[in-house]
Amino acid sequence: MSKGLVVLAYSGGLDTSCILLWLKEQGYDVIAFLANIGQDEDFDAAQKKAEKLGAKKVFIEDLRSEFVQEFIWPAVQANAVYEDRYLLGTSIARPCIARRQVQIARQERAQYVSHGATGKGNDQVRFELTCYALYPQIIAPWRIPEFYSRFRGRKDLMEYAEKHGIPVPVTPKAPWSMDANLMHISYESGILENPKNHAPSDLYQMTKNPEDSPSEPDVLEIDFAKGVPVRVTHVKEGTSKDTPLELFCYLNEIGGKHGVGRIDIVENRFIGMKSRGIYETPGGTVLLHAHLDIETFTMDREVRKIKQSLGIKFSELIYNGFWYSPECEFVRHCIDKSQENVEGRVQLSVFKGQVYILGRESPKSLYNEELVR
Amino acid sequence: MSKGLVVLAYSGGLDTSCILLWLKEQGYDVIAFLANIGQDEDFDAAQKKAEKLGAKKVFIEDLRSEFVQEFIWPAVQANAVYEDRYLLGTSIARPCIARRQVQIARQERAQYVSHGATGKGNDQVRFELTCYALYPQIIAPWRIPEFYSRFRGRKDLMEYAEKHGIPVPVTPKAPWSMDANLMHISYESGILENPKNHAPSDLYQMTKNPEDSPSEPDVLEIDFAKGVPVRVTHVKEGTSKDTPLELFCYLNEIGGKHGVGRIDIVENRFIGMKSRGIYETPGGTVLLHAHLDIETFTMDREVRKIKQSLGIKFSELIYNGFWYSPECEFVRHCIDKSQENVEGRVQLSVFKGQVYILGRESPKSLYNEELVR
Amino acid sequence: MSKGLVVLAYSGGLDTSCILLWLKEQGYDVIAFLANIGQDEDFDAAQKKAEKLGAKKVFIEDLRSEFVQEFIWPAVQANAVYEDRYLLGTSIARPCIARRQVQIARQERAQYVSHGATGKGNDQVRFELTCYALYPQIIAPWRIPEFYSRFRGRKDLMEYAEKHGIPVPVTPKAPWSMDANLMHISYESGILENPKNHAPSDLYQMTKNPEDSPSEPDVLEIDFAKGVPVRVTHVKEGTSKDTPLELFCYLNEIGGKHGVGRIDIVENRFIGMKSRGIYETPGGTVLLHAHLDIETFTMDREVRKIKQSLGIKFSELIYNGFWYSPECEFVRHCIDKSQENVEGRVQLSVFKGQVYILGRESPKSLYNEELVR
Amino acid sequence: MSKGLVVLAYSGGLDTSCILLWLKEQGYDVIAFLANIGQDEDFDAAQKKAEKLGAKKVFIEDLRSEFVQEFIWPAVQANAVYEDRYLLGTSIARPCIARRQVQIARQERAQYVSHGATGKGNDQVRFELTCYALYPQIIAPWRIPEFYSRFRGRKDLMEYAEKHGIPVPVTPKAPWSMDANLMHISYESGILENPKNHAPSDLYQMTKNPEDSPSEPDVLEIDFAKGVPVRVTHVKEGTSKDTPLELFCYLNEIGGKHGVGRIDIVENRFIGMKSRGIYETPGGTVLLHAHLDIETFTMDREVRKIKQSLGIKFSELIYNGFWYSPECEFVRHCIDKSQENVEGRVQLSVFKGQVYILGRESPKSLYNEELVR
Repeated sequence: MSKGLVVLAYSGGLDTSCILLWLKEQGYDVIAFLANIGQDEDFDAAQKKAEKLGAKKVFIEDLRSEFVQEFIWPAVQANAVYEDRYLLGTSIARPCIARRQVQIARQERAQYVSHGATGKGNDQVRFELTCYALYPQIIAPWRIPEFYSRFRGRKDLMEYAEKHGIPVPVTPKAPWSMDANLMHISYESGILENPKNHAPSDLYQMTKNPEDSPSEPDVLEIDFAKGVPVRVTHVKEGTSKDTPLELFCYLNEIGGKHGVGRIDIVENRFIGMKSRGIYETPGGTVLLHAHLDIETFTMDREVRKIKQSLGIKFSELIYNGFWYSPECEFVRHCIDKSQENVEGRVQLSVFKGQVYILGRESPKSLYNEELVR
Repeated sequence: MSKGLVVLAYSGGLDTSCILLWLKEQGYDVIAFLANIGQDEDFDAAQKKAEKLGAKKVFIEDLRSEFVQEFIWPAVQANAVYEDRYLLGTSIARPCIARRQVQIARQERAQYVSHGATGKGNDQVRFELTCYALYPQIIAPWRIPEFYSRFRGRKDLMEYAEKHGIPVPVTPKAPWSMDANLMHISYESGILENPKNHAPSDLYQMTKNPEDSPSEPDVLEIDFAKGVPVRVTHVKEGTSKDTPLELFCYLNEIGGKHGVGRIDIVENRFIGMKSRGIYETPGGTVLLHAHLDIETFTMDREVRKIKQSLGIKFSELIYNGFWYSPECEFVRHCIDKSQENVEGRVQLSVFKGQVYILGRESPKSLYNEELVR
Repeated sequence: MSKGLVVLAYSGGLDTSCILLWLKEQGYDVIAFLANIGQDEDFDAAQKKAEKLGAKKVFIEDLRSEFVQEFIWPAVQANAVYEDRYLLGTSIARPCIARRQVQIARQERAQYVSHGATGKGNDQVRFELTCYALYPQIIAPWRIPEFYSRFRGRKDLMEYAEKHGIPVPVTPKAPWSMDANLMHISYESGILENPKNHAPSDLYQMTKNPEDSPSEPDVLEIDFAKGVPVRVTHVKEGTSKDTPLELFCYLNEIGGKHGVGRIDIVENRFIGMKSRGIYETPGGTVLLHAHLDIETFTMDREVRKIKQSLGIKFSELIYNGFWYSPECEFVRHCIDKSQENVEGRVQLSVFKGQVYILGRESPKSLYNEELVR
Repeated sequence: MSKGLVVLAYSGGLDTSCILLWLKEQGYDVIAFLANIGQDEDFDAAQKKAEKLGAKKVFIEDLRSEFVQEFIWPAVQANAVYEDRYLLGTSIARPCIARRQVQIARQERAQYVSHGATGKGNDQVRFELTCYALYPQIIAPWRIPEFYSRFRGRKDLMEYAEKHGIPVPVTPKAPWSMDANLMHISYESGILENPKNHAPSDLYQMTKNPEDSPSEPDVLEIDFAKGVPVRVTHVKEGTSKDTPLELFCYLNEIGGKHGVGRIDIVENRFIGMKSRGIYETPGGTVLLHAHLDIETFTMDREVRKIKQSLGIKFSELIYNGFWYSPECEFVRHCIDKSQENVEGRVQLSVFKGQVYILGRESPKSLYNEELVR
């Protein structure tokens, strides 16, 4: 008899494949859930693999559009930056994924949700824990002694996989870990752990090395309404994008082509320790610059001050995994309110890793050319 | 009989030359005071001009070293940035200049201090007013009806100058105004007033256009102690600088060579209106990145949060001209205290307008490589 | 020919009576506007006096209800307290009065609004100035040389009044000034200026001396919804009040009977100087205690922290006269949002100058008795 | 053979007596440590009892003086109040006790420290955990299954005590728990858990019921220097106290006599849940009022704002047990710095549960009587 139905956040990788099987071994029925939030993944292969491993159902869900509109856009409105540098690409993806997982669990009347986050070297546990506040019955194998004493490392997982016919990755693992989505790719651990070591130049996947990027800028116009971008236009080419997903992907493309949004930082994790991370956030970085500009152009100075401190609070909250908390909802509401008049057009140039604001205009501007003179 | 002795903040330019003469016409004795805070100026010529105009004494004072140590360094410690973008190069120069002017006024037993700030289109009045809190007897000609009704524009000044043999600038005035010092050059008004207009490419004087800057990065190592830089080393060339002034000039040189620190913003002035400004802050921008990195590396997370909000407060205060206020002194003290352990070395690359942090190390690091693993 | 129509904020007292006449002498037509915000005043007599002085029209407006609902209630929601002690009774009355004055000015197509605030010893000027932001054409006689050089003190006003048949107050003026409304009475200047002097015991008008107040408490129940009181019940007597105005007056009555809400403070004025004030705020003090209790009972801890800092900001803004500012509107909106679940009943006792919370209950409480155990 | 040496925070009560014995049963040597921080306790009896139970050594330490100077005084400087009402009497006692316990453990070369805090219904665990950050080897029996499964309630402890000859309290336990020290007594749990229930009138031990308190006020003068009280004078009687401990005890006496400092609140605990507590803090409440007054009188307005937010931060930190944290040390340093000029004399009256400020004077006052006029 089944111990119950589990919705597992499944990535298609070694860890969650083993977990899927192990959960079945333990007597659970397993639904595999894989969210497409823009990472580079063979979703078909992942689906087949999950089915082969005995998943009762497999949900592959394209969440890219809601990720942009409901998670990236609020971060843009907030100028969300953690500790003055990190644009929170991983932090805002967690609640998006978890929300859908919980919806599926409810819809399928599952008793449990489960995930493969280890807590080692990443804040995923804290993130997911908080998100799962929405669904308290969690199975977290990496916190279960039967699991973690059996699988003490990658080697154990590999053996288990081979033994049970789980396809094993053939390419050698990179000497760091990465987390990718539409907003960014983060790299950490492995050879990056030593904060003095430079990041290898072949690490980046979303952005060109500025040394090799085009020697001519691209000039864009970004139109904002209520603090979010509603259109991006390439001035020279005359092309434009105006749906959130297309628009954001286009900014990733242009930003990536010019090597925009690379940072190498040490950050303070929720747990208290410090961690070194490399991030590339091309489109998000372009938007941060553009939004800062149109916001300052259209917002009252004193409102801006208050909103700035709410934005810092917001950044801390989502970094720490509290997207679904009363305080985060409150802060989001207030920030959203502050954006009512953040409307207008910013012209900027993207070049060699940089975003240069060139000019701006707005029907709601508080700028008074007469007064300045 | 003299109406009294005035120490005039004299720039050598048209305005303050006319003011010097006008003050004498009004019956004052005038001491001309010109501070060297790193602007590009022919100080000898200015001296001679002032003498010729009838200044009783001329003080040309090299304040560059104290400007770096007592004004730029606290800004570096604070990560001082106004409204998320402006590095406050003008704001921190005012109190440095005013302090010395007041010292001279006291030493020379002058009854008055005077300056040529207009209050039109700039926050200089507010700045200086606050600074002169130290010396309340101010003569501000541009606020005196006899003066401003006589000199209604540049044309009146030119005529007055010609009539009185004041050498008149021969090169046509740029269609914008600028303010330069060791930390930055700011450009505003004129054709820049329209916030939609792009800044002309020949405007910048401290920084190369990134499109024309070298196609190879320079890699620097910056050593910090107590939150301020104590040595900069060019890794490849092996050269290093370790006095504050030399070190900062060198960062300006390298930053400028690679086009670092250009911004085009609209900011909120103290008066309440918005103003468009173009700034270039090469060395300051390099230091901001480097200091942010070493600070986060060595400072406790929760201390950092509190210090961050103090830094924002500090930036608002100095932008608004309150360097010499009880609250600013209090905040400076607290920020200084927070920097006790901000010590270590940051390696970074400067390239095409960007500063890339490459790695860091510190004897005081709270980073624990073991813990991360 | 008339110089224009002026709506004068008229109090019926010596100053504004003289101003009314003086304005007419200067060639203006004058409309007298007197707001009833709960002060103890013979409004009929004031009306007749204004008519006799030649006011073209006299508006006596009962603003008490809107004062309670639109100004006191937001202050209750915010726990508005300036510098940890002052409940802002004067500060929130100004925008209420000014708003109506401006409405009348618009409706009557007046060219000007005018007021008798002196700026001496009080922040009224700042308050009113800000409020009049709504209507920029202000005549402020105490800032007009023709006026203030003619009326150098109370004696000049008295002579002018006698000469022009303006009824002169017969009772000698108290050796302090006061400002009264439904929320509070403030006392300042005169013998109170010396911060060491005790306030005379016969000064207070809204509250009994606690030494003479009843030797038995009154126990009240206050019901809140969305952070504002919706019913007050006297537990023993079984009586209750549930319209805002009645409810607040009843709290003033009970609070006043027991001597609640007296404070003697030195506060920091907007202008920068310090000022000694005595205040009595009976009903407002009862509500502050009750609201603090039900709010903490029903609000998430982290929301509370953010809301607390917004409340402090709100208090500073309204103290400084910025009720009608973008930032104050923004903060009010955010605070109002935070009150959605602030609902429930507080039981408290009022006795000898104190408010003692006895217990509370709420359908929206986050309190979990099981969890506590 | 001994499992090691344990320094146990021993109260003399049932719980820690049982723990002492149980630790010995488990094979540990036990040193009993009892801090005198002003609670009402028969220290001799407690000593004898501990010896009889087999403690290897018993340390009874009078920490009252250092509690006042090093913990209460910083709270006074900070105007430390948690959630606008709670004066943190328990929170500031924990680090004082823990510090000494750790000193003893080091001095006696003990392997462990231990305490009897349950974590049920109180934040003691969190407090102590943080404090013990100083000494990581903790034995917390109430978190050890062998202990808590054996002692499931008071009854089990009673039986164990009787069986082992531990003297059992003869008076029936009050239907609530309390925590007492020089600063305050807190009452919670039991019949107080229902937030609607009124506190019984016989609960309070430090303060008279205001209904029965004297019908005449006592007038005190409190002299401050650097933000802490240095002398208290009874104006009528002419007596005065000027050592910290005596001074504070005297304020407790006068405050208690007049029923000052009783509050009934629901507060947000660190864990996230809400908890109802009754507190009486007589001397601390008098000092809060007096310090607020002299501070506002002598401190610059803008410094005050910044300091106010640091004080709120400080209150949250110590409530949550972070006295010994880098951020709390930083905040304490900054607050202390802000108190440099907080000097002067406050006159106040204590009467029927209230503290009324009557007047103040200071050599460092920023109050300018001339300016006010």
